[in-house]
Amino acid sequence: MKVTLAQLNYRIGDLAGNCNKISEVIQQQGNQTDLIIFSELCITGYYPLDLLDKPEFIANQDEHIERIKKLSEQYSAGIIIGVVDRNAFTGKPYHNALMLIEKGNCRFIYHKQLLPTYNIFSEARHFEPGKIPGVCLFRGHRLGFLICEDGWNDQAPFHYDNNPVQDLAREKPDLVISLNSSPSNTGKQEERVLRFTHIAKHCQAPLIYVNQTGANDDIVYDGASFVCDEKGQGVLQLPAFEEHVTTITVLSPDAKKSPSVTLLAMDNIALYYQQLIMGIRDYVAKCGFPGIVIGSSGGIDSALTLALAKQAIGAEKVTAITMPSRFSSEGSRHDSEALCYNLGVKLYTYSIDDEFASSLQSFSGVFKEPARGITAENIQARIRGRVLMEYSNQTGYLVLSTGNKSELSVGYATLYGDMCGGLNVLGDLYKTQVYALANYYNELHPAAVIPQEIIDKAPSAELAEDQKDSDSLPDYPVLDAILQQYIEGDLISEHERQQASAILQRVSTEVIAEVKKLVDRTEFKRRQAPPIIRVQRRSFGAGRQLPISGSYEYC
Amino acid sequence: MKVTLAQLNYRIGDLAGNCNKISEVIQQQGNQTDLIIFSELCITGYYPLDLLDKPEFIANQDEHIERIKKLSEQYSAGIIIGVVDRNAFTGKPYHNALMLIEKGNCRFIYHKQLLPTYNIFSEARHFEPGKIPGVCLFRGHRLGFLICEDGWNDQAPFHYDNNPVQDLAREKPDLVISLNSSPSNTGKQEERVLRFTHIAKHCQAPLIYVNQTGANDDIVYDGASFVCDEKGQGVLQLPAFEEHVTTITVLSPDAKKSPSVTLLAMDNIALYYQQLIMGIRDYVAKCGFPGIVIGSSGGIDSALTLALAKQAIGAEKVTAITMPSRFSSEGSRHDSEALCYNLGVKLYTYSIDDEFASSLQSFSGVFKEPARGITAENIQARIRGRVLMEYSNQTGYLVLSTGNKSELSVGYATLYGDMCGGLNVLGDLYKTQVYALANYYNELHPAAVIPQEIIDKAPSAELAEDQKDSDSLPDYPVLDAILQQYIEGDLISEHERQQASAILQRVSTEVIAEVKKLVDRTEFKRRQAPPIIRVQRRSFGAGRQLPISGSYEYC
Repeated sequence: MKVTLAQLNYRIGDLAGNCNKISEVIQQQGNQTDLIIFSELCITGYYPLDLLDKPEFIANQDEHIERIKKLSEQYSAGIIIGVVDRNAFTGKPYHNALMLIEKGNCRFIYHKQLLPTYNIFSEARHFEPGKIPGVCLFRGHRLGFLICEDGWNDQAPFHYDNNPVQDLAREKPDLVISLNSSPSNTGKQEERVLRFTHIAKHCQAPLIYVNQTGANDDIVYDGASFVCDEKGQGVLQLPAFEEHVTTITVLSPDAKKSPSVTLLAMDNIALYYQQLIMGIRDYVAKCGFPGIVIGSSGGIDSALTLALAKQAIGAEKVTAITMPSRFSSEGSRHDSEALCYNLGVKLYTYSIDDEFASSLQSFSGVFKEPARGITAENIQARIRGRVLMEYSNQTGYLVLSTGNKSELSVGYATLYGDMCGGLNVLGDLYKTQVYALANYYNELHPAAVIPQEIIDKAPSAELAEDQKDSDSLPDYPVLDAILQQYIEGDLISEHERQQASAILQRVSTEVIAEVKKLVDRTEFKRRQAPPIIRVQRRSFGAGRQLPISGSYEYC
Repeated sequence: MKVTLAQLNYRIGDLAGNCNKISEVIQQQGNQTDLIIFSELCITGYYPLDLLDKPEFIANQDEHIERIKKLSEQYSAGIIIGVVDRNAFTGKPYHNALMLIEKGNCRFIYHKQLLPTYNIFSEARHFEPGKIPGVCLFRGHRLGFLICEDGWNDQAPFHYDNNPVQDLAREKPDLVISLNSSPSNTGKQEERVLRFTHIAKHCQAPLIYVNQTGANDDIVYDGASFVCDEKGQGVLQLPAFEEHVTTITVLSPDAKKSPSVTLLAMDNIALYYQQLIMGIRDYVAKCGFPGIVIGSSGGIDSALTLALAKQAIGAEKVTAITMPSRFSSEGSRHDSEALCYNLGVKLYTYSIDDEFASSLQSFSGVFKEPARGITAENIQARIRGRVLMEYSNQTGYLVLSTGNKSELSVGYATLYGDMCGGLNVLGDLYKTQVYALANYYNELHPAAVIPQEIIDKAPSAELAEDQKDSDSLPDYPVLDAILQQYIEGDLISEHERQQASAILQRVSTEVIAEVKKLVDRTEFKRRQAPPIIRVQRRSFGAGRQLPISGSYEYC
């Protein structure tokens, strides 16, 4: 049997656009294959959130499903799509479902049984879980179905008291098909392969794993769909971070001959690189921005953000603005220029010195006291944020904010200042990872490098005389180890845990407690941050939900 | 049997503080009553969100429960508290539970069966549902237990396929006790009384409904706990929006004699008034701000916000800053002064004209073109936002932002400008409701009124020459009817629906479509808004979750 994996990039809510993409694949492949498999919730996009509450939304989806059914009349292939199905009984109004369409008819529907409600997921908000295994006879083969989370309770840790894989295995499927919208983060590709090759062995059947690709706001889907045989041996792997349609023969003597393939997981840094570029590119494309504008301080964060933005949408659509003040070093100004020259990016220089001086003067004139340290520092960041927004308002360009996860964790960022922007690119990379990614970028792009001076200099916000980050924060390797343990300690790998522990052995409990306190007390800033492209196991945003006025300090 | 209802104001995560409050009530009442009933999750505060994921958090809670057990040894009363209980089986790690403590021992535990996962609720994120009814013999009486949502599936609409009330009724309890953390919003008091008096009749037993009071970030709990007899007739109602501890005799011949009480629901406007004041007061107290600063434009929104802030924490802790520009009318300047004089609030005047002019000049100098309309308008709002933040950074005062729900809905607000602030007060009131509340305020406070000029003048952002809101938006009664239908049309009452429909009959479908488009396209702004005190059935924030880069426009 010939099976086609369609790994596509959907836009949430764009029913017509998503349906067109699906139709194109059907038109190209519909007579050359037996079965075309799309991914979870491919018509609505994943995750549609409260669009599901709009009464006309599902009616409109159904019209598009009818279009696909109609189209299927002209082709021989069966078509599997992820859809929202109505719940005929009590409970939530919908099921997260898959539908098998053949020759104009819906042949089979399966309802997802495990609905994730942790980290970034909240599927119980809209969906009622299915209760029965999905098995269906198709062209002489017993197809067994899973939808994404259904496959994540067959091995520890067990988050649900039922296991759809166990139930499916009892049905002895000839082929297991999993439709997924599985977000990408550190370690995810490896974990997926481990879990789903295990499922193939458990069910004693080959398994086809189809994932979507593309970014939706802060969440990026890598794709990296794959096929393995009943022994869990890799047979096919699709590339990550791009659309791809591939046909493979399964369940026939020929298939036995195809050489086995090692199912690979990308290196972390290569993953971050591709993931952030896709995150930027899709946000710009799906929102319809004509270009990007970034404040260039001469520091590593804005330099890397600029380099990634150029990679995502091309230098000609990227503008940098450097906004020096009396505290900006000569080096910083020069480094901004060298960077933008290397990248081929247009650079404006907007000195904020006069406005800063007159703000200070107005402040003491009105409030009868001079602006103190943090007040004066933030004025600079907020004038800069305003200038970036002026350029954005004037041109329609998207402002990318440039803070990293270390800074955002401890609140080392100015709300309405450097936190201004429609999307934050590095907000889920710790500072040490920002350096690693900058070095990786330079290796990949010898003709458009980030100047070494930017990588080498001591990090500074340059908001006061001779200021260094290390004046008020532990060194970044220490800070990052504390933060990783605190923010995602329950999710990191054994290897990461050991690395962090080795560093933390040398750190006093007071320093660790102080950092944790900073994290707790700056929740209000992160609540107002733009969406942060998610790359780690737990990012700021929907994946980490905490009260502001509440407080819990462990003593 | 004597039963004490303890309607208290808890702080999320403040285990020691909450436990102290509970202990005080036990110390005062413990030998004068048979049973003291606290509310849902009273030790951790509701809702603790991902504090529940901190490994030491529940261990620490348990230490505090032990403190309460120990204390109970000295008193005769049984004590019912809402706690987080560990789940001994597969699934989510915890149960949302209640515990009956008597003489140092845990006598009984009940696990909440219905976990809400809609609107602002996400209890399935952390909790596993209980599966059995809660009935326990106590001093000769069969007590039947419910926790909040357990009681909300006994009448339509049915959101769950089980009904804990039905199961409880079969157990024939002598008394039904419901522990709640039920947020306040329009219509909620009436709905609660309807549903829970119906439960009393269904179970043929008197019912005690204990709710918490107090605000946590954007969510306010009114309290308004009550008792009804087995016929659903009111016996006792506690005041709303304050802590209250009351003892009542139930299940004895004497109780029959107590005169019946009408269980009242507050008027909407009175509810908004008290709810917003509690929202401000608790946010300031629980975060520990020394005071509040508000930008005073001379318009109705900032005037009402100032008046409510004064009511919440006293005039001496509230500062206003008026920041006129060339577009500010003489009336606006004068009205700000009159307002602050009436309220007794300190007013600073900070002219932004020079800074605005030099920003415009720098803009055209650097970018070689003049700042266009929206660019120039936003510069003014952002300079003002910066000044408010300067004052906040200097003094530690909380900035309250002043936008209303109508403006936030259509994006008629400047991100990083007038949207600056730690808390938004009026963001869940439509503009027409803002006027109604301002008039109500003036009736209540004849000595500290909002000047009539502020109420009477045509709304304007005053960011350009002779600008009026009505230049770019429909009149507010029309706009508000469209918005209410679009944002919470599925939740409003029949009466509200009829009112809105009557207005909308006269409005063209193009105007309605245009407003809906504005709402959809400005999601990115609301994502970066401060917490908005919730008063309506569906507010912006956790209660309405939509994608940004996705889009769905119904044609």
